[in-house]
Amino acid sequence: MIAEKMKGFVENSSVIRAMFEEGKQMAAVYGAENVYDFSLGNPNVPAPAAVKQAILEILEQENPVEVHGYMNNSGYEEVRAAVADSLNRRFGTDFREENIVMTVGAAGGLNVVFKTILNPGDEVLVFAPFFGEYRAYAGNYDGVLKVVPANTETFQPNLTAFEAMITVKTKAVIVNSPNNPSGVIYSEDTIKKLAQILEEKEKELGTSIFLISDEPYRELAYDGARVPYLTKYYHNTIVGYSYSKSLSLPGERIGYLVLPDELDDAKQMQAAANVATRILGFVNAPSLMQKAVARCLEEKVELEYYDRNRRALCDGLEQCGFSFIRPEGAFYLFMKSPVEDEAQFCKAAKKYHILMVPGSSFACPGFVRIAYCVAYETIQNAMPGFRKLAEEYGL
Amino acid sequence: MIAEKMKGFVENSSVIRAMFEEGKQMAAVYGAENVYDFSLGNPNVPAPAAVKQAILEILEQENPVEVHGYMNNSGYEEVRAAVADSLNRRFGTDFREENIVMTVGAAGGLNVVFKTILNPGDEVLVFAPFFGEYRAYAGNYDGVLKVVPANTETFQPNLTAFEAMITVKTKAVIVNSPNNPSGVIYSEDTIKKLAQILEEKEKELGTSIFLISDEPYRELAYDGARVPYLTKYYHNTIVGYSYSKSLSLPGERIGYLVLPDELDDAKQMQAAANVATRILGFVNAPSLMQKAVARCLEEKVELEYYDRNRRALCDGLEQCGFSFIRPEGAFYLFMKSPVEDEAQFCKAAKKYHILMVPGSSFACPGFVRIAYCVAYETIQNAMPGFRKLAEEYGL
Repeated sequence: MIAEKMKGFVENSSVIRAMFEEGKQMAAVYGAENVYDFSLGNPNVPAPAAVKQAILEILEQENPVEVHGYMNNSGYEEVRAAVADSLNRRFGTDFREENIVMTVGAAGGLNVVFKTILNPGDEVLVFAPFFGEYRAYAGNYDGVLKVVPANTETFQPNLTAFEAMITVKTKAVIVNSPNNPSGVIYSEDTIKKLAQILEEKEKELGTSIFLISDEPYRELAYDGARVPYLTKYYHNTIVGYSYSKSLSLPGERIGYLVLPDELDDAKQMQAAANVATRILGFVNAPSLMQKAVARCLEEKVELEYYDRNRRALCDGLEQCGFSFIRPEGAFYLFMKSPVEDEAQFCKAAKKYHILMVPGSSFACPGFVRIAYCVAYETIQNAMPGFRKLAEEYGL
Repeated sequence: MIAEKMKGFVENSSVIRAMFEEGKQMAAVYGAENVYDFSLGNPNVPAPAAVKQAILEILEQENPVEVHGYMNNSGYEEVRAAVADSLNRRFGTDFREENIVMTVGAAGGLNVVFKTILNPGDEVLVFAPFFGEYRAYAGNYDGVLKVVPANTETFQPNLTAFEAMITVKTKAVIVNSPNNPSGVIYSEDTIKKLAQILEEKEKELGTSIFLISDEPYRELAYDGARVPYLTKYYHNTIVGYSYSKSLSLPGERIGYLVLPDELDDAKQMQAAANVATRILGFVNAPSLMQKAVARCLEEKVELEYYDRNRRALCDGLEQCGFSFIRPEGAFYLFMKSPVEDEAQFCKAAKKYHILMVPGSSFACPGFVRIAYCVAYETIQNAMPGFRKLAEEYGL
């Protein structure tokens, strides 16, 4: 009875569910504390206290008809202005309320963007490794995802392959930095080269190519690493942001899009994003949470928690002899599988109650993703297992 | 630069925006209290005090990582179970948590349903007058909306025309009762006949036809009127609900779908709705609000407020000599225009600072929608204008 397009997704989803169920079964058999589940990118650090405080103040001080009511489909004007101001302060940009659309998380925002720009058959380029949901989001609007193969030496985008793949059909390019799953931050040098290629191709082909910066992990950058703000490098840049990680509010579905005035047909793009928000059924980003994040724009979760995990995981795995690029951001480590078939490696790891996601899920076989948004103890307690695993593979 | 499919929507949206701007301009010129804006279906009664109380308790009592975190894409299991129990208590149904998908409002829910079931070219039948957004929602998945002409005597569905319009392409039928814009509640007799037609057509054509009950206004029924629960009349019924009106939370985007076990391929439908929620970018209904509504399932807004408006409006307009069917639910009155071209009538009304929506927006020309979710004083103060308008048209 379900739509043809849904059938593959439902089958695939049952595979993921089976993995999840297996984890739950392992926890039931061995005890949750003896299962080291590194498979989920679910923040485990609580929201800053300021979020609760903001909600309480809003409920006490503001009119409930306004707090829980409809507003412009792009969001409350004062919230959008506050978001624009905060970006301007931090990144030296020049946004106004008109450039911001509040969204139902970054996933909602990306769907709004694709609804806004994609005609059937339009191509969307992504750099492996990448978050697999992009394929579904583009497919919702009959866009075709094209995967630029990974540069597995650095996990910076493979720009030579990228340039060769751009055609008149290319409508958008997604970048995700800090990256899920690699933890790599795309360098300013990479971004400058990427922008230059896009500008040249736009001229050469006479098309508009939108650079979509999906940045839910922007605030999770370690050792003071800088994450370039992409609108400053390329005119046709759209930013998708989420408070899911920066404020640990993934369930609340709150984020925003930035649609700069420098976009081709900027006014029409902003109007269309507003309409797309409405007709896709989002209608608007959740109202109370819009107001709450507007009061917490300078807050973020305790980064030191994730950073301590990162250091412990990197040091431990290094000592075991595993190979990986030290993550600079997000909360993932992308480790080279000691054997080509990383699914086999993941299977072997389960003997030690260690759960990881095969790199094939991110179009990058031969690697595994380890999500370190877990308790510190999980990392410590998993290490003997990782050590045995390394020995098993002769590292 | 925007997608072809979006162009018409953006143009149309700018017309609506122009209307809205005109209202704001009138308010600036004449004073907000002297403009009688009956154009918006925006609840103006505050949420019950229990909602605020529920939010405060959740923030005090529960773990923030859980309150603001990811959960099953269909919603928290305990919330879904509580919703099912509440429905069972009130309507004698037999739902379990598996039958409920928490959604980003009813608009989000309808998009999830259409994503789940529609193949390109599938037809969706609606009864005029109807909420115009249905056309966009079906179109998002390349479904084709077919409008059953209105029965303007009763505004009950025109079942003869309906039966003749069902073909092998008919995948779904939407009903919306209490109805926006007519305020009519579809009678049990209507529902029984509708169900019988659908059952016979399913047999005759060998297809599945889903009856989608969009019921954001279910709790707004006056004079003790009963709104039949449609899953009890027809096996392939899907219910879309929203707390936007019943708890005055339209900005919070919280509602649910009911996918009964009696649906054809029920398990696959439930799984697909879960996946559709994820890949459309909703991911899940806002988490804190899920928990809040679960604590307020027996609450509703002060119905007497809307009812007082309804009585005042009906009595006043009747005395003026206008024709309409007394609304039994929702917060709309659908009035016959004294002239065929109701747009002209709406324009004339603006002289008296009265704003109404032309029936053509609901596929029912010759009528106008008056939304009475306004201050009581607005209705009182608008009456002299309505009287002059009636005189002008010789009523």
